[in-house]
Amino acid sequence: MLEHTYAVIMAGGGGTRLWPVSRRQRPKHMLPLIEERTLFQATVQRLEGLFPPERIFVVTVARQAEELRRQSPRIPAENFLLEPEPRGTASVVGLAAVALRSRDPQAVMTVLPSDHYIRNQDLFHLLVRIAVDVAHKGYLVTLGITPTYPSTGYGYIQRGEPLTEEGLYPVYRVVKFKEKPDEAQAREMLRRGDHSWNSGMFIWRVEDILEEIGHHMPGLKSVLDEIAAAWNTPSRESVLQALWPTLETETIDYGVMERAKNVAVLPASGLGWSDVGSWDSLFDVLLADENGNIVFSGQHMSLETHNSLVYGNNGERLVVTIGVEDLIVVDSGDVLLICRRDRAQRVRQVVEELKRAGKTRYL
Amino acid sequence: MLEHTYAVIMAGGGGTRLWPVSRRQRPKHMLPLIEERTLFQATVQRLEGLFPPERIFVVTVARQAEELRRQSPRIPAENFLLEPEPRGTASVVGLAAVALRSRDPQAVMTVLPSDHYIRNQDLFHLLVRIAVDVAHKGYLVTLGITPTYPSTGYGYIQRGEPLTEEGLYPVYRVVKFKEKPDEAQAREMLRRGDHSWNSGMFIWRVEDILEEIGHHMPGLKSVLDEIAAAWNTPSRESVLQALWPTLETETIDYGVMERAKNVAVLPASGLGWSDVGSWDSLFDVLLADENGNIVFSGQHMSLETHNSLVYGNNGERLVVTIGVEDLIVVDSGDVLLICRRDRAQRVRQVVEELKRAGKTRYL
Repeated sequence: MLEHTYAVIMAGGGGTRLWPVSRRQRPKHMLPLIEERTLFQATVQRLEGLFPPERIFVVTVARQAEELRRQSPRIPAENFLLEPEPRGTASVVGLAAVALRSRDPQAVMTVLPSDHYIRNQDLFHLLVRIAVDVAHKGYLVTLGITPTYPSTGYGYIQRGEPLTEEGLYPVYRVVKFKEKPDEAQAREMLRRGDHSWNSGMFIWRVEDILEEIGHHMPGLKSVLDEIAAAWNTPSRESVLQALWPTLETETIDYGVMERAKNVAVLPASGLGWSDVGSWDSLFDVLLADENGNIVFSGQHMSLETHNSLVYGNNGERLVVTIGVEDLIVVDSGDVLLICRRDRAQRVRQVVEELKRAGKTRYL
Repeated sequence: MLEHTYAVIMAGGGGTRLWPVSRRQRPKHMLPLIEERTLFQATVQRLEGLFPPERIFVVTVARQAEELRRQSPRIPAENFLLEPEPRGTASVVGLAAVALRSRDPQAVMTVLPSDHYIRNQDLFHLLVRIAVDVAHKGYLVTLGITPTYPSTGYGYIQRGEPLTEEGLYPVYRVVKFKEKPDEAQAREMLRRGDHSWNSGMFIWRVEDILEEIGHHMPGLKSVLDEIAAAWNTPSRESVLQALWPTLETETIDYGVMERAKNVAVLPASGLGWSDVGSWDSLFDVLLADENGNIVFSGQHMSLETHNSLVYGNNGERLVVTIGVEDLIVVDSGDVLLICRRDRAQRVRQVVEELKRAGKTRYL
């Protein structure tokens, strides 16, 4: 096990792009979307052999905490940090850094989304170990994913010079973080070969990230300082409740990483990674059958069906597809979604329209 | 009302091409597929003003009789003729002819399927009146439907010389009945312009059809003679039960019409007719919205959806379609069917496979 290293799982989100399976009351990371275990459980279990349970922290919101504890009984209850309300990943990272520093001033933290999928656990462990080494030298390290196609759904990280010549594994200085590109930009980045997808997985020393927050997000830093001062006192909770709502919502990427110096990237290929950010993304991580289909459905019959996803979570229901190509079918409770594969991003728009129309029962 | 004329509605079938809405226990004609009333109810109501209820007969099987009586309370119970088991339309016609002749030796019968759709009731009435006139002259008359596209799903009737020069409406001698053609043949028939679709609606004198059955189906005729002899005796039912299973299954088209002389056809256009023989056929009879879609569903949201049918019979369920074209979606109870429009005929194959696999719960 790594000394002084901790995992921080960010598990408070409520993504809508996997609607209608993910809902307000059942966000994506709490669902057994790809396997029998939930994405959160898979994230926890992926850490076995790397971090003991007492060094795994979970940042979430109160209404999700009970279910997440149930899903990860080996993680101590006090390792669940509750945000009074969601304020973006910068605040999550700051809160976790305060908690870790109070336990271990030399702490290195590995920040992990709870709702991503990684097939290759061994490579993941190796990358975290390397990243921890690099973080010990004072870098903010990010795991980059080597692009396999010109995705317009991910942010990108441009790498510069190699950080060390002699390492086991190449690590690079980051030149620039880039927001989700259009297709032409994505193709160009793929052609250049010096960009990685931003995986949202970060490794750094607690003291380094708090210092960078101080430089780039002084408002957050002063709140964190007050929370830190109250951390081991009876007023921790009341200070947190009082100050948290004053924070602006911001991501750690935009708030810190895009501006910080000493940022490094480990480009990873073969990790079998996906952010599971849309129904279409399941094709990136799951093996399709000989017709290119991915079927999660109790009963399914198909004729002339190709490159399609059939997802049904009612085991008794028979789903029949005839002459279907490049289609996503999600049959879930009171909603049936039928969507062309290359339109999977528009699911978000449907969710927005349902909100506007007040049809909350479907959200 | 027409003198000595009777309607005979054939209502014993159990078609599978509108599966999964039509099932073994709920065959197509018993369902409110297109309107709030069932296809059978629409067939009965279409006769209003043409035949009084006491001159409408229904031929069905015992297990459907109760429900059909409930759906048509004005038709006298004794007008329901029960086949001991289905033996094809030739036997249905023969049984009805025996029953009608015993009531009225001069009877003219109008044979009507119970599961077709006709939008233009006035034209239908006019055509039946003309057909009855022609039948009184000794012809076996069939209503032909003027083709609107090269269908490979219907049988065709080739017409020859006009029967009379002076009629209100053109009636022709039939040259030939043709089985369902391939697409090239269908195009050629459409090009020639002398073919009609076989609607399965027939008008003839009872004495004429029984005579033709005698010529072309002597086995059926001898059984019908025995049944006729017992008709007004206490042994009617026992004779029927004993002899019916010995009959070969045959259609009236193949058994008689294709071989008979004196066959006439009334070509009808503008009837708004469909045999509702496949999900795709609903596009022939129903008006689509501005995107070409036909939606029967309690809750539906669509983005970029065109020329598609969404049929859901669960009013609480939300069906969302995104980027969908030329697709049929049928969401019905324990089955979800998703089928490309031009593959709608293959539904029958799915039903066959379910039978073979013993998955009777879905049939």
